Amino acid sequence: MSKYRTMIAGALAAGLASGAAAEVTLINVFEVPEGQTDATIQSWESARDFLKSEPGYISTQLHGALLPDAKYQLINVAKWESAEAFMAATTRMRNAGVFRPVAGVTVSPALYSVIRED
Amino acid sequence: MSKYRTMIAGALAAGLASGAAAEVTLINVFEVPEGQTDATIQSWESARDFLKSEPGYISTQLHGALLPDAKYQLINVAKWESAEAFMAATTRMRNAGVFRPVAGVTVSPALYSVIRED
Repeated sequence: MSKYRTMIAGALAAGLASGAAAEVTLINVFEVPEGQTDATIQSWESARDFLKSEPGYISTQLHGALLPDAKYQLINVAKWESAEAFMAATTRMRNAGVFRPVAGVTVSPALYSVIRED
Repeated sequence: MSKYRTMIAGALAAGLASGAAAEVTLINVFEVPEGQTDATIQSWESARDFLKSEPGYISTQLHGALLPDAKYQLINVAKWESAEAFMAATTRMRNAGVFRPVAGVTVSPALYSVIRED
């Protein structure tokens, strides 16, 4: 196990042992075909409207690329109180049929922790 | 031009017209082969050490994926006072030979603005 993995595992174990929910960052990276950005933003807004009233939600910021040739036109960065809260909320969203995928758009959501800060 | 592009162009033009430098967000998405995460973090730290004393630098956060199967193992989110300041700083970094690429790692840096916030 790399130093990095050991550090992440240690941080998660410490959070669980203390009973404290470890705040996590969801980052969702969107690959958007030309002409589909507005539709993707609307789809994202529907998901946000559902998720913002779910337990454990803290905040969200959707970033739009300044240049049209950026590989990832949209990147969402959101804070949740714990990985468990985020996963439960997205399961409820899927079951509610709220999220409408947009043709040709690839999404890559994953949970992160901040490992360096300055 | 899409509504989204019109909005971005309008925001940039308004910033320029007012003489205010528009704060921008650099997001750098890393695809890291297994076993290369620690080396990539060290390379990122060298770049950060150079960039943090450049004019226009505000802050940076390096995010590490909680799970080893995430497509993007590392994502850097940094704030700069303007696109011009960021581009000048990275040009100086390249000329100084500070940045050491890591074998097999793909980086996709781009500048963003926050287009939705909650």
